[in-house]
Amino acid sequence: MANSFGHLFRITTWGESHSGGVGVVVDGCPPRLPLTEADIQPELDRRRPGQSKITTRRMEPDTVQILSGAFNGKTLGTPICLWVKNEDARPEAYLEIRDKFRPSHADFTYFAKFGIRNWQGGGRASARETVGRVAAGAIAKKILRLRFGVEVLACVKQVQKIATDIAIETVKASDIESNIARCPDQAAAAKMIRLIERVRRAGDTVGGVITGIARGAPAGWGEPVFDKLGADLAKAMMSLPAAKAFEIGSGFAGALMTGRRHNDPFRATNKKVFTKTNFSGGIQGGISNGQTIYFNVAFKPVATVMHEQQTVDVRLQNTTLKARGRHDPCVLPRAVPMVEAMTALVLVDHALRHKAQCR
Amino acid sequence: MANSFGHLFRITTWGESHSGGVGVVVDGCPPRLPLTEADIQPELDRRRPGQSKITTRRMEPDTVQILSGAFNGKTLGTPICLWVKNEDARPEAYLEIRDKFRPSHADFTYFAKFGIRNWQGGGRASARETVGRVAAGAIAKKILRLRFGVEVLACVKQVQKIATDIAIETVKASDIESNIARCPDQAAAAKMIRLIERVRRAGDTVGGVITGIARGAPAGWGEPVFDKLGADLAKAMMSLPAAKAFEIGSGFAGALMTGRRHNDPFRATNKKVFTKTNFSGGIQGGISNGQTIYFNVAFKPVATVMHEQQTVDVRLQNTTLKARGRHDPCVLPRAVPMVEAMTALVLVDHALRHKAQCR
Amino acid sequence: MANSFGHLFRITTWGESHSGGVGVVVDGCPPRLPLTEADIQPELDRRRPGQSKITTRRMEPDTVQILSGAFNGKTLGTPICLWVKNEDARPEAYLEIRDKFRPSHADFTYFAKFGIRNWQGGGRASARETVGRVAAGAIAKKILRLRFGVEVLACVKQVQKIATDIAIETVKASDIESNIARCPDQAAAAKMIRLIERVRRAGDTVGGVITGIARGAPAGWGEPVFDKLGADLAKAMMSLPAAKAFEIGSGFAGALMTGRRHNDPFRATNKKVFTKTNFSGGIQGGISNGQTIYFNVAFKPVATVMHEQQTVDVRLQNTTLKARGRHDPCVLPRAVPMVEAMTALVLVDHALRHKAQCR
Amino acid sequence: MANSFGHLFRITTWGESHSGGVGVVVDGCPPRLPLTEADIQPELDRRRPGQSKITTRRMEPDTVQILSGAFNGKTLGTPICLWVKNEDARPEAYLEIRDKFRPSHADFTYFAKFGIRNWQGGGRASARETVGRVAAGAIAKKILRLRFGVEVLACVKQVQKIATDIAIETVKASDIESNIARCPDQAAAAKMIRLIERVRRAGDTVGGVITGIARGAPAGWGEPVFDKLGADLAKAMMSLPAAKAFEIGSGFAGALMTGRRHNDPFRATNKKVFTKTNFSGGIQGGISNGQTIYFNVAFKPVATVMHEQQTVDVRLQNTTLKARGRHDPCVLPRAVPMVEAMTALVLVDHALRHKAQCR
Repeated sequence: MANSFGHLFRITTWGESHSGGVGVVVDGCPPRLPLTEADIQPELDRRRPGQSKITTRRMEPDTVQILSGAFNGKTLGTPICLWVKNEDARPEAYLEIRDKFRPSHADFTYFAKFGIRNWQGGGRASARETVGRVAAGAIAKKILRLRFGVEVLACVKQVQKIATDIAIETVKASDIESNIARCPDQAAAAKMIRLIERVRRAGDTVGGVITGIARGAPAGWGEPVFDKLGADLAKAMMSLPAAKAFEIGSGFAGALMTGRRHNDPFRATNKKVFTKTNFSGGIQGGISNGQTIYFNVAFKPVATVMHEQQTVDVRLQNTTLKARGRHDPCVLPRAVPMVEAMTALVLVDHALRHKAQCR
Repeated sequence: MANSFGHLFRITTWGESHSGGVGVVVDGCPPRLPLTEADIQPELDRRRPGQSKITTRRMEPDTVQILSGAFNGKTLGTPICLWVKNEDARPEAYLEIRDKFRPSHADFTYFAKFGIRNWQGGGRASARETVGRVAAGAIAKKILRLRFGVEVLACVKQVQKIATDIAIETVKASDIESNIARCPDQAAAAKMIRLIERVRRAGDTVGGVITGIARGAPAGWGEPVFDKLGADLAKAMMSLPAAKAFEIGSGFAGALMTGRRHNDPFRATNKKVFTKTNFSGGIQGGISNGQTIYFNVAFKPVATVMHEQQTVDVRLQNTTLKARGRHDPCVLPRAVPMVEAMTALVLVDHALRHKAQCR
Repeated sequence: MANSFGHLFRITTWGESHSGGVGVVVDGCPPRLPLTEADIQPELDRRRPGQSKITTRRMEPDTVQILSGAFNGKTLGTPICLWVKNEDARPEAYLEIRDKFRPSHADFTYFAKFGIRNWQGGGRASARETVGRVAAGAIAKKILRLRFGVEVLACVKQVQKIATDIAIETVKASDIESNIARCPDQAAAAKMIRLIERVRRAGDTVGGVITGIARGAPAGWGEPVFDKLGADLAKAMMSLPAAKAFEIGSGFAGALMTGRRHNDPFRATNKKVFTKTNFSGGIQGGISNGQTIYFNVAFKPVATVMHEQQTVDVRLQNTTLKARGRHDPCVLPRAVPMVEAMTALVLVDHALRHKAQCR
Repeated sequence: MANSFGHLFRITTWGESHSGGVGVVVDGCPPRLPLTEADIQPELDRRRPGQSKITTRRMEPDTVQILSGAFNGKTLGTPICLWVKNEDARPEAYLEIRDKFRPSHADFTYFAKFGIRNWQGGGRASARETVGRVAAGAIAKKILRLRFGVEVLACVKQVQKIATDIAIETVKASDIESNIARCPDQAAAAKMIRLIERVRRAGDTVGGVITGIARGAPAGWGEPVFDKLGADLAKAMMSLPAAKAFEIGSGFAGALMTGRRHNDPFRATNKKVFTKTNFSGGIQGGISNGQTIYFNVAFKPVATVMHEQQTVDVRLQNTTLKARGRHDPCVLPRAVPMVEAMTALVLVDHALRHKAQCR
C-alpha cells in the first residue's frame, strides 16, 4: 500500500468504508494558517453522497474533526489529523459480495494482492477513501488562495455524450455550483441531469469528463525531469477512483496539429510575458509558464449496476451477481471536489518545493 | 529539480545536451543479474537520433559505459552508473537562442525557475535526457523478462491523422521493428513515413500516439491508494518530453459507455480467472488483474519548426526567431523505446514493492 | 515537520499533548497478521505515565483504538490508524509557561521555527508523542516474532552513576519487567529506585543509559551506504526525546582498542558462521552478520526540575521560572518500551527492504 | 542498497573501489552558485590516501570532473554529476581474499546479503565510496558559507588513549590543518602522530574520536519528530565506514548529571537569546537553538592488520588470513573531511526544508 502523497506538503490517508472512519494526516502545512473545521466541512459537503437526486442515496453526514495540528484556530506546523466517522455501516447489505467478486470493482485485485479483504463494502477501494483527500485539499486550497493568489476550480465538461466547452479563463465557481451537475453551461447541465436520472431508473451508470483549472500560478512551479507539473497532476488524477484518462492543454487533439500551429507564441507587454495561445496548458518542459493551467480527466461509468452480471466467486467458480439497494448513477458531480483537492495538493507541494530550491 | 524515479528500483538521471554527457544511476537492482553493455546498447540504438531518414539528422553514436555496479558480467546489488558521452556538441548552432526563448520549448520556464539556463541546446530539457531512462529501462526489461516472465512493448498507433488499431494481445516486437515508423501495421507505417517525410520537407513537425503494452504481469501489482499502477504509469509517461495525454484501457472512449457495457465480466477456467473484455486495461482499483496492461500516450508535434515565429527575448522584448539547421519532424519512432523503458521501470518497481509487503 | 519514519513499513505519528489525542498511521504492514487492541495495549501500559512510584504522577489511561486497517482480527494490508485520546488535559497548569521558555525544553526552538506553539504542555515536543511510536512498535515486534523469529528487548543499564553490565545474549524480558526500574540486575535496580526516589524528593532529575538488543536477525539486513542498519538505529534512537548519545557494539570503548584486539574472528561449525567476539555489535559494513545486535542510548536528565531557573520570556526579556505540580524524576524506565519500539520499527523495515531486493 | 541521502539537497553516490570510478549525483543544488572543480578538489585532497606518512600509502590522485549541472562556472539547478576515476587498481593484490572473508570487514555480510561481491578490494564497502560524499560535501559547505553564513569544521579529538579538549567556540580550520593528525592541539597532535607511526610499524591499527562543529546556524533548523537535527547528524555519521558511536552536546557524560546542572539557562541581550551553557549541543527538541552545534564520533580501529587472523572462507571452512602490502594504521585524519562533508550535507538539507515550510 502507498497511502502518502506529496513531498513537502504530504498527506497520508487512512480508513475503509466500514471501519472506525476515514481520515488523513497532513504533514508539512505551514504554521500560523487560520484553520478550523469550518474551512474543511464545505468541501466535504460537496463530496458527500446523498447531496442531490443524481448521486447515490447512501446518506453520511461526514462531519470532520481536527484531532491535532491546530491551536486557537491556527496551524502549528505540526501534523494535522482530520477524522470523519463512518456512520452508514450496513454490512448486511454486502453479504452477497462476501463470496463474489463484483465485475470491474477492486474486489478481485485486492484479494489477489492481499489474500484478504474487507467485504463490507469497497473497503479501502471505496470512493469513501477520498474523504481524506478532499479534507486535506481544503487546506491546500486555502494556502494557495491566501499565500500564493492561486485559484483552483473543476467542473463537469461531459456526461456520456453530452458535452460542452469550458471557458478556461473565465468560468466561475458560482457558475459551477449553481446546478447539481456542477457543469457551468446551464443548458448542458439540464441535459446531463435528465440523462443521469434516466440512467438511474434504468439501473445503469454513466461516466464523463471533468476539467480542472488553476489560475494565477506564477512561472516556475514544477520539478523536471520526473516530477514535472503535468506528470504529477496526471498521477494525482489517475489515482482517483474510476479515472481512466488525463490530458493537459491540447491533449489528444494536439497530436492532430502541426508544430507551426501548435506552438504558443510568446509576447510581452510591460515586461510581462504571456502566450498568444495556450495549447501548452500552462506548462512547458514540466514547469508552469504563468498561463492558466487546465486539463481533462475521464471517468469510467460506475461499476455497480442493478443488473445481473457474470462473475466468479472466491472459490474461483463461475457465477452471477446482481447488486441490490442503492447505486450511484454518475460519480462526476461528486468527483469535482476530488479533482480540485488533488490539483491543490499538487500545486501547494510544488510551490513549497520551488521555494526551497530557487527562492 | 527531481531527477529520481521509483522507490525500490530507483533511477537518478543526470546530464544536459551539452555537458560531459548524460547518464543514470540505478539503485536497487537485484544482484546476480547478468549484465553487460551489450544488454543496454541496442535500446540506445533504437532511441538514437539519426537512425533513419524520418528522425533528426543530429548524429550521436551514444555508446554506453557501465561505470559501476557490475563485476564479471553480473550485477552486484550496488548502484549501477551508466554513462554516455556527448559527442555532437556544436554550441555555435545555438547562438541565436542564447538570448531568445523558443516558443513551446522549455527555455522560458527554465529561465523563470532557475534564473539561468544552458542555452547550448535544450540543456536539461533536451530529449537527450531520456538516454538515461532508456539505458535504465533496458535493465528493467531484462529483469521483467528473466525473473517475472513479463514482456513490455510499445508501438506507434497514430501519426497526426494516420491511425491504426493495435492488436494488444498479439502484436510482436519484430512487427514493430520491421519498419522505421515502428508501427506494426505495415500499410499504415508506409503512410506515416510518407507523411513525416513531407512534413520534414515543409520544415514542419507532427505528433501522434504511442500504445504501450505489458503482457504476463500477475494479478497483484500496484500500490493503492496513491501509487496505483495506472497512476504511476500516467506519471511516467507524462514525464516524457512532449507527452500531452495518457489513457489506460478504454480511456476517454470509456466515458461514452454505460456501466453495463463497460464492466469486464470475470470468468474462470481451471481455477484461472480472466475477464471476457478488457476495458479496464489490465488494472482494477489500481492493481493489475492478470490481463494485458495497455495504454495510449499522445505526443505533441516537436516545437522546433523551420519557420519564423513570434517570441520574446531575455530582456522581455518582442522579437522573432527562425530555427536553423536540422530538425526532427516527428519524435514518435524514437519515443517508442522511451515508452517501453518507462513502462518497465514502473513495473519492476511495483514487482519489488509487492514482493516486499505481500509475499 | 517530518513525522514519518521507515520506507516499506512506514509510520506517521500525529498529535500533541493537549489536542484531540495522539496516534499513528502504519502503512505497509503485511496483510493477514492477527491484530487486535490487545496486542498493542500492553506496550502502551509499559510507556504510560503514573505506572509506578518512580515515574511522573500524571495519570493517563492511554487506551488505544484501532480505527482502520484490520478486519475480523486480521490486518488488511491497508493503513492502520491507531488513536489514543488525551484525557489529562489541564491547560491551567501551564499558564506560567505561556509566556516563558522552559530551559532545555523545546519551547524556544519550536517558537523560533514556527512562530507559534501550543503552550499547554509540551505540545508536539512532549514525550506524549511517543505513544504513536510505541503503538506502532507493538505491531513491528509481533511481525518480527511471528514472521522472522527475531526478539527485541531493551533494559536500563545505568541511572546516573549506578551502572551494571547487561548479559546481551541471555537477558530475559521477565528479568527486565520484574522491577519498576526495568533493570535486569535486581541489586542495581534496587539502588536505581532508591536514587530516583531521592532525586524526586529533591525536585531534581537524573538521566542514564538504556541497552537495546535484537536476537535472531539473519545475516543480510541493512542497506548501505546510507541506510546502514547501525545508522538507521542511531537515527531512530536519537529521534527519541532526551536522547543524547548512541553507540553500537564496542562503541566509544572500541576507539581505545587496537585493530588486532577489536577484530571479531569468524569461525564456522556445521556450515554455520559465527564470530568469536562481538565488538561489531552484530553489524558489519552496515549489514547484520547474524550475531546479536546490541547498542546503548544515553538519555539526559529530564529538563523539568522543581527549582527556580533563569530563562527568557516571549518578549525576549530575562526572567526566572519555577515549575509547579508533578515532575518526572527519571524517564529511563518508561523509555525502555520506546527503545524497543524504535528498534523493532527499524528491523521490520529492513527485513522488508532486504526481501524486496535480494530474495 | 540505499545510496541516496537527503531530501531537498539529495546526493546519490555510486562506484566501487575497483570499477570505472566513484562519484556522486547532487540533486537539488540551488541554481547560480559559482562552482568549478577548484571548489571540490581541495576537499578530495584532504580525503586522499597517501597524503601523509600516517595514512595508507595507496596512491590515488583522485581528480574530480564535473560532468553535468554547471555551465560557465555556475550551477544550473540541474543534477550535478561528479566523477573520480579509479587509478590504483591492482586486483592481484586481492587474490587471497577472493575466497576468504576478512574479519570485521564487510566481505561476509555483503556476500550473505547479495550472494556475490567484488572481491577486488572492498568493493562498495571500501572507504573509497566516501569520495562522492566529500565531493558533494564541498558544494554543501560552499552553500552554507555563502548563503547562510554557517561554518562547518571537524578535527581529531582522540587517537586511542591520546585525547585533548576541543575549544568548540574558537578552534580554527588553520589550526586543524597545521598538522597531519588534524588535531588543533599541537602537542597532542605530535603524540598522536608518533603513536600512529608506532602502530603502523607494528602492523596494527588504532581508532579514535572526531569532533564535528557547526557555527552560525540560526535557531529553527531541524524537522521533528523523526528528522530531528541531532538524529539526522547521528545517521549521517554512523553511515561513515568504521563509525561506532555518536554523541551530541553533553552526550554520555550528560547521563551523569542532574537536571538542575544540565539545563542550559536562557539569557537575552539586546533581544538576542543565548544559553549560558551549551550541554544541549546547539539543538533542543531536535531543532537548532542558535548556539554552536557540536558532537563526537568514535571510529573503531581499521580492520586490516598485518597479522595472521582466524576466519572462514567462502565454502564456510575455518582458515586463517594474513593481509599483505599496504595498510592504513589510522583512518582518523582522513575521516575529518568526511565528517565535515556529512555535517554540511545534513545542514544544507535542513536549511532548505526549513525555508520551504516556515519562511
